[in-house]
Amino acid sequence: MIEPLENLVEALCRLPTIGRKSAMRLALYLLERPQEELTVLADSIATVKAKVKICSRCFNYGMSDLCNICASPNRDQSIVCVVEKPSDIFVFEKSGVYRGLYHVLGGVLSPINGITADKLRVAQLRARLDNDNVKELILGLGASAEAETTCLYLARIFANRHFKISLLARGVPAGTELEYIDQLTLNQALHERNEIHYGDRT
Amino acid sequence: MIEPLENLVEALCRLPTIGRKSAMRLALYLLERPQEELTVLADSIATVKAKVKICSRCFNYGMSDLCNICASPNRDQSIVCVVEKPSDIFVFEKSGVYRGLYHVLGGVLSPINGITADKLRVAQLRARLDNDNVKELILGLGASAEAETTCLYLARIFANRHFKISLLARGVPAGTELEYIDQLTLNQALHERNEIHYGDRT
Repeated sequence: MIEPLENLVEALCRLPTIGRKSAMRLALYLLERPQEELTVLADSIATVKAKVKICSRCFNYGMSDLCNICASPNRDQSIVCVVEKPSDIFVFEKSGVYRGLYHVLGGVLSPINGITADKLRVAQLRARLDNDNVKELILGLGASAEAETTCLYLARIFANRHFKISLLARGVPAGTELEYIDQLTLNQALHERNEIHYGDRT
Repeated sequence: MIEPLENLVEALCRLPTIGRKSAMRLALYLLERPQEELTVLADSIATVKAKVKICSRCFNYGMSDLCNICASPNRDQSIVCVVEKPSDIFVFEKSGVYRGLYHVLGGVLSPINGITADKLRVAQLRARLDNDNVKELILGLGASAEAETTCLYLARIFANRHFKISLLARGVPAGTELEYIDQLTLNQALHERNEIHYGDRT
């Protein structure tokens, strides 16, 4: 294959979920598009890192020192939700229910992979919780073994503080048939079952 | 979502097979990569069109006036294989069996979509066949209804010329179980069945 096309295929191959065959298809597609379109794509790739800043408070992506969420007067400053990575914030925001702030931990504990508490933004979280007037800390991490460990770790180091610590409920996800639920999830859903009273939802 | 990230997601979304969710994942992945890597990808996208030329003889992609294949002294100049698009040439070349030349038609006949013979590189093919010393024209198009029609069309307009015209064999593809073969393919495979003689393949 000719060099410029090969270079493009190689560069596209490095992207996640794009194998050589897809990269080839994308490269040939790009070759047929107008140059303006290629320029727009190339520019947005080349400049995204320089344009996007990291919020100095919650470590979310933003356009200036504070991200849109931290800078907003409409957010409840007394609740902080700890998430693993900035993209998790998009998930919360899409639901539109949560009105508090976030704290991007930058990962979850995984000592086997060398990710210990000092590699995460735990010290920065501690500093925020010391200074800001926080009433509740929500552990908004996932439910993998490592995320659960991280939740337990955070719950332990911030135990007996002036704020409440809460964990996202575990249970049956919406729209799922019970036969597809794994045993651990079912056990958790049983354990955390809620009493219902006739008329509660009317 | 912040603007530079949104712009990147939008640009990625325009690529085939990449929906908004994949585009988002790719954008967030890119944001975490070193700038050099982004620059390499952006450059190869921005410059590919300018660097890649179209071969003046066969309309394959190349680096100069003639593509590598047309310029090679090792290719059999007397056989021309008509293909739909440049990427089809990669498929033939990967097999490594074919040693002749190609002619990129630029599509297949599809009057309903406005693709008539004058929109394809039929005139250029005719000129090549008039001037070059061609002994065989292979119709290397696919087996879709439109591709078949195009093959018939080419076979008709080049009938009674000094060169042989051949069509890729139709039949059971390698590695396929017979129960998954459609009726048309089976009929063609039956129709084009070949007599075998004991000892032929030894």
